[in-house]
Amino acid sequence: MDEPVLLTGAGGRVGRAILRGIGDEYDWRLLDREPLTGQDVPAAVDDAETVVADITDEAAVREAMEGVGAVIHLAGDPRPDAPWDSLLRNNIDGTRTVFEAAVDADVETVVFASSNHAVGHYETERAPDLYRTDDDFRLTGEELPRPSNLYGVSKAAGETLGRYYHDEYDRDVVCVRIGNLTKDHPPREYERGQAMWLSHRDCAHLFDCCLTADFDYEIVYGISDNDRKYYSLDRAKEVLGYDPQDNSAEYTFEGEPKDGR
Amino acid sequence: MDEPVLLTGAGGRVGRAILRGIGDEYDWRLLDREPLTGQDVPAAVDDAETVVADITDEAAVREAMEGVGAVIHLAGDPRPDAPWDSLLRNNIDGTRTVFEAAVDADVETVVFASSNHAVGHYETERAPDLYRTDDDFRLTGEELPRPSNLYGVSKAAGETLGRYYHDEYDRDVVCVRIGNLTKDHPPREYERGQAMWLSHRDCAHLFDCCLTADFDYEIVYGISDNDRKYYSLDRAKEVLGYDPQDNSAEYTFEGEPKDGR
Repeated sequence: MDEPVLLTGAGGRVGRAILRGIGDEYDWRLLDREPLTGQDVPAAVDDAETVVADITDEAAVREAMEGVGAVIHLAGDPRPDAPWDSLLRNNIDGTRTVFEAAVDADVETVVFASSNHAVGHYETERAPDLYRTDDDFRLTGEELPRPSNLYGVSKAAGETLGRYYHDEYDRDVVCVRIGNLTKDHPPREYERGQAMWLSHRDCAHLFDCCLTADFDYEIVYGISDNDRKYYSLDRAKEVLGYDPQDNSAEYTFEGEPKDGR
Repeated sequence: MDEPVLLTGAGGRVGRAILRGIGDEYDWRLLDREPLTGQDVPAAVDDAETVVADITDEAAVREAMEGVGAVIHLAGDPRPDAPWDSLLRNNIDGTRTVFEAAVDADVETVVFASSNHAVGHYETERAPDLYRTDDDFRLTGEELPRPSNLYGVSKAAGETLGRYYHDEYDRDVVCVRIGNLTKDHPPREYERGQAMWLSHRDCAHLFDCCLTADFDYEIVYGISDNDRKYYSLDRAKEVLGYDPQDNSAEYTFEGEPKDGR
């Protein structure tokens, strides 16, 4: 991609994982409400344009969108128990601002960070069986949302905004329902965490795929190729060319499994 | 139902159709931001408790919810081209307030007025063929939203809120994707309007079904049994006992059909 890629929420956990993995592959414009500092700031940040602004600051978002080829939109309140007012403002209204600005700036591709919480209540009657390797229940991304909290509602709303901006303005939009991103190894004693583990390496690779593949509108699951998975990776593999390298089953599962969430 | 039914947005077109049709069947508590006046106010209004309040007034909504057995939630900005700020505040935040208040007041059943605009973009590649009687394309309510405008996005968000409040708090929730409500006859020269016509009589009957049937979480289409329909009525008939009496095909179709919307 010749133009820079705008990364909103660049300082968050997903943003840092992306920058560590594919920081050298793109020219980045990094937006975060806080300056990117700290020991684990990836080297890629040194060369990048940075914008310190809140995602609800429409003028700043519009300015940051000028001249970019794609946007990876991660910014938002990441707390599963975030209060509604914050979700409404940061996650729903903020995401609408990003799409609106992307359209007006002729940005072709929007990659939206959705969440497993958008479909968390599919697990309710099926846990813990669906976390087991011999259970073949799979969510594909074609199912209606069943959020497990208002945070999940806000992410589902972001997906629907993406669908609208795709249909109405012909933007390429992919929504990644991100699982459980942990750096070194999956949670060892938590079946659900193993089922939806996303390694840092696979995370960066998946967002790389989102920036390079041809697609129209997609909802994909963002997890590693875990034996315990109940999210299908078929669309991510087929449409985006996602080729995950990690599997939580390769890590010793110690102690008794914990049920539920 | 022994307890009163709260009807929000009672003074709107759908609210008045409901009150004219089944006004005598229930004890109503009518909430609207304007006093219910005018020549076409149904007689049922005379005996009803009325609350003049905005749906964004959380304290008023909570007070109106006390002691009711069910709520039919129609209030919101009804304009397909409504500005986003109004949709965010009235339709998304307002609907969340209704669900939250219903849970806290132990109201068992919430009937949510969704809209055909939540799925309007399914028509884009299929119009005008899908408006024809020999076309068997059907939306069932199980498909993901494809809003045709931000109003449709706001209604899809309301449906997802309903899913969450059903799953999390075990409320009975039905979302009615209302078609094209007109009083006397369907639009005569507009194929799409004929396809999604909802007569006043069928409208009142459908909401009556929503108040009396047993269901968990449902998305149904609210149209008459039109020959030109591309919305399935199967779930409404099977789960709610909907028995529509009208069909736009019974009205003379004059002149050349108009394509599209």
